[in-house]
This record gives sequence, structure tokens and C-alpha cells, in this order.
Amino acid sequence: MKHKRITMKEIAEEAGVAKSTVSRYFNDGYVKEETREKIRKIIEAHDYEPSAAASNLKAKETKTIGIIAPTINSNTSSRLLTSINAYLKEKGYTVILIDTDHDINDEIRSIQYFESLRVDGIILVATNINLIHQKLVHESQIPILIVAQHFKNGVSIIYDDYRAGYAAGEYAAKMGHENVLFLGVNRVDEAVGVQRRKGVLEALEEYGVPKIHMRETDFSFSKTRKVIRHYLEDHHPTMIIAATDNLALACYKEIAEKGLRVPEDISLIGFGGYEVSELITPSLCTYRFDYELAGKMAGATILSLIKGDPVATTQVIGFRKIEGGSVQDRRKKGEAK
Amino acid sequence: MKHKRITMKEIAEEAGVAKSTVSRYFNDGYVKEETREKIRKIIEAHDYEPSAAASNLKAKETKTIGIIAPTINSNTSSRLLTSINAYLKEKGYTVILIDTDHDINDEIRSIQYFESLRVDGIILVATNINLIHQKLVHESQIPILIVAQHFKNGVSIIYDDYRAGYAAGEYAAKMGHENVLFLGVNRVDEAVGVQRRKGVLEALEEYGVPKIHMRETDFSFSKTRKVIRHYLEDHHPTMIIAATDNLALACYKEIAEKGLRVPEDISLIGFGGYEVSELITPSLCTYRFDYELAGKMAGATILSLIKGDPVATTQVIGFRKIEGGSVQDRRKKGEAK
Repeated sequence: MKHKRITMKEIAEEAGVAKSTVSRYFNDGYVKEETREKIRKIIEAHDYEPSAAASNLKAKETKTIGIIAPTINSNTSSRLLTSINAYLKEKGYTVILIDTDHDINDEIRSIQYFESLRVDGIILVATNINLIHQKLVHESQIPILIVAQHFKNGVSIIYDDYRAGYAAGEYAAKMGHENVLFLGVNRVDEAVGVQRRKGVLEALEEYGVPKIHMRETDFSFSKTRKVIRHYLEDHHPTMIIAATDNLALACYKEIAEKGLRVPEDISLIGFGGYEVSELITPSLCTYRFDYELAGKMAGATILSLIKGDPVATTQVIGFRKIEGGSVQDRRKKGEAK
Repeated sequence: MKHKRITMKEIAEEAGVAKSTVSRYFNDGYVKEETREKIRKIIEAHDYEPSAAASNLKAKETKTIGIIAPTINSNTSSRLLTSINAYLKEKGYTVILIDTDHDINDEIRSIQYFESLRVDGIILVATNINLIHQKLVHESQIPILIVAQHFKNGVSIIYDDYRAGYAAGEYAAKMGHENVLFLGVNRVDEAVGVQRRKGVLEALEEYGVPKIHMRETDFSFSKTRKVIRHYLEDHHPTMIIAATDNLALACYKEIAEKGLRVPEDISLIGFGGYEVSELITPSLCTYRFDYELAGKMAGATILSLIKGDPVATTQVIGFRKIEGGSVQDRRKKGEAK
């Protein structure tokens, strides 16, 4: 063991990291496990003891958090972002937001941009996680939290889309619906497009619903109305389960325009629990995630990551059913309990 | 006239401005009129001729625009912001957004924060303009554009709230409504709370509507429902003009819960033209501003300000009526054309 006294700068050089990382190490700030181990070994080898001054020398904080979101023009996204913002503002942080407009390349540029601003932490509201994200998050010296999609190699907060989907499918089956359309969105969106859909379809199958159809749309009213109009021309479902409340609202309109009634002719279930879904008549039966809670948890979690406090790698946000009046009970008499 | 050769640095010192401002002056970038005049005089006095090198030395651009908004959790605000973002992204800019959550002090801090980041321009979506704003905008060396409120001492883009309000009031009167409630919001919001309200009430008065009432709420569903429920207990308006579509949607619900019908018992008019207002039955008669156009104009205007191109100090966004089925024609027979 060499007994040469080594400086923070030399530790940083030997570990191949920035001096600020070494400083964070000494101040119990966020340092990736792998880097932490490297620094620990160098210190051991050199028998380094930090001076009191050095250990008080905090890594420079900017008190700024960067958020990257795919859109701000959606009910659920707006509510989540508003909640994150309120939480972090209260804690004294400046929150800056980049809206990528669903452009994945822009997400990557935005991570790099926030790194150049030396924000203290980054929250990425994702629609999809690919290899580049994994590499970037792995290499970043700034803590990154992923929200809305599951992230195997890091920390994420997710909505329980599979189980919410399953609950909706199960409810439709138990209410005696035998001819059900699931109206989904593109599968590029892993959470809504894949997990929610999977939950609905598996429940419908497991409960032996004889007729299960599936149509795909995007998140827009106009496309959705066209898809539903076309579908209703030669199909007669008793239930439509729509992947979001917005899609369900488009169904209301098309059902009304065909002279049919909700729920007497066609029942409807959505996901989201938008305030407006309560205001239509009959109000929509919908499965609601707690976006306000998700926002607070995201805020608390990024602060924990920055401080180096322990956090769960995956935190799951639950849901609840909002009854509404849009589902008809079609169970035969005697079948109902 | 002294014939001493002066450097850009010396001009900056003499004018009491940053060197980058002088550089912008020589490169036809944005420099406030007052500063421009100062620099011009110093140059004249010293007979300065910039070298080719200096005149090619562009002021350092960051290709970043900062947006400050009171909320992202409203239909109109989200649409405007999404449109600004898309326009500027296409032009190669990074757009970063701060959501002040209706906190005016935060607007001021955000302007200063964006200045410290050396963004090329700032767009402030305002709910209210006070003296501090005026001072900040006046002192800032970075171009600032105000959207949604009129700004006497600078450049702004506004919605034609007064005329839209007037058009709605006029329409209600011309359709024979004699007992009209205007449901407004707090007057801290100059555009919606003052101008829109003023337009509605002036039209109703000018057309001689005998019973005009006025109630105030905030932008939330729950408060609005409470206000309307209470009002309908001992009033029987034939028409409610609501300051936003959201308020009108809350009225639908309360009217339905009282066992009344739209428009047979009570007619409704809103402002906003949210997609969802088309989806309820009967669809809402509403006055819609072109938020997408406003976003594009805001993007184009801030770029013009940065380049130093001429811009109108006030640009007004027009509106159109979306008919809907929520207004009853109460004109007596023979009166209708």
C-alpha cells in the first residue's frame, strides 16, 4: 500500500471521472455504483483521508431540474407535469421543461442539453425506451428518473397499465357482454399501446367472451371517429373498451350520430378519469390512475436520487374505477347476484 | 471630432452596455432603440469603422428560446404552447419552458433565469402585466414577446377578447334572450376576466336585454358547479354565457342534474372551441380563437425580434363562432327573418 497523499483531482483523473463526481462521492451525493466502487478502490490504495474543507466542499448545485415530456397537450400528461412542477417548486427548485413533440431523437438531444446546463436531475416522461436511452442514462453523471415506462436498468415510476386493462376486461365480461370491441392505440407506446391492451384482451379471453374485436387508432378525435364510424357500419358490439377517455368521448359522438344510445345499445369504458368524462351524460365508466400522486412521487424520487438516498428501482402507481353510467348490466336474470 | 480609433470594447464601456450588444448592433441583431441611439452617437463621435472581421463576428447565439407560461394544464394554453414549440423546433431552436403555476413572482425570476442562460429570446404568456414586468422588459438586452395580454411598452400578441365577448352578447340578444347570466372569472386575468366580460356585458346592454346577471367563479369545474347550482336555485335564466368552454361544460352538468334541458330550458355559449365541446350533445356554441395560428405567430415574431426585423407592436388574433346546438331561437314568430 502506497502512503502517498492523493488529491481529489488525482482521484478523478485515475478514475477517469470529473472532479465534481469525486466531490459528490465524498458528500454522499449521487454517484453511479460502478464509479463509486472505482473511487473507493483508488482511495483505499492511496490511503486517502479527505480534509474537513474538502468534505464540506459540496458539489455545486444549480437547484434546477430538467423535465423531458413527449407532449404537454394531453390531459394526463398535463396533470402529471403540473404536479411534478408544483412539488419541486415548493422544494425551492427551478423546473425547466422540454416538449419533444413525440420525437425520440429530441429526447436524446434534450438529455445532453440538460447535462450541459448542469441541472441537478432529469425526469424523462417516456413513451418508449430504446438502447440509446439506456446508454445515455448509464453514462450520465446526472441522476435520471424515467416516468410512465418501465426501465430495466434504472429507476422508473410506472402506471399499472396491465392490471388496469385486465380489470376493465374482467368487468365487461362479468357484466355479461359477449361482443366487445377494444379500441387501442399504436404499439409504439409500450404502456398504453401494449400493456393496457394486453390486460384487456387477456381478461376478455380468460372469461370466455365469445366475440372479441380489436381496432387501432391514434390519440386524435378525428381519426378515432373515422375508425369507429367505419367499424359500426357492419358490426354490433354491446361494449367498446377504449384505451383512453378521449377515444371513448369520440365513441359517444359517433354512437349518438348513428341514433344509438349509451349504454342501452352500446356500453363504454375508458381509461384516464379526465374531469370532462364526468360531465357528459351518462358519465363515463373509466379507470383512473393517480397522476397527482405520480407527480409528487417523481419529484420526491429525483430529489432522493440527487441526495444519494435509497430509492426503489420501480414504483407502481395504482388505479381505481370511476363507476359512471355508461355500462349496461346484460347478465341474464338469475345470473345476477 | 476626434479621430482616435475606438474598439468595440471601448464603445461598450462608453455606452454602458455589454460587448455582445455592440456586436449585435453591427450585425443588425436586436438592440433596444435607446441603446442603438447611444451606440450610434459614440460611433459618430469617434469616427469608428468596424473591421471586416469584427462585423462578421456574430453575437453568440445559443439557439434557445425560453417560454414562461402560467399553466400547461389548460386546453387553450397547451394548444398555444404546443404550436409555438413545433414552429421553433422546426426552425432549429431548443425551446425550454417554465410553468409558473400562476405565480407572478416566478415570472420575474424566470425572466432573470433565462437571461442567465443567455437564451436568444423569451416568450411570456401572461395573465397580467404589472410594473415589474415593464421594468424588466425595458431593461432586458434579450428580446421579450408578451402573448395573451396587451403590453403597452413592448411587443405583444393578443386575442381579440373584447370583440369576441361582444359578438357572443350580441348573438344572445338577437336570438331573443331576455334573461341572461354571464359567468365570468376573476378580474386579475385582464383578457378573460376584464375584456371578454366587458364585451359581453356591453353588447347585452346596448341591445336592451332586460335582465342581465353576472356571477364570478375560478377556472375549476368544482367551484363553477357550486356557483351555478346555487344560482339556479332562485334564478331562471334562458341563457348562460360562460367565459370559457370548461365553465360551460360545468353548466351542462348542473342543468342536467336539475332535470332541465339544453337548449330548451337554458341556452349555453362558451369561449374556447375545445375539441370536447363538439363531442357533447347538443354540441356547444362557442367562440374560438385560433391558438395554433397564435403559436406560429409568436414563434415567427420572436425570431424577427432576434434578427432585428421590423414587427408590429400589437398583433391581434381573430375568432370565429362555432354554431353548435346549444342556443335556442326565442324570437317571437314574425320577428325571425
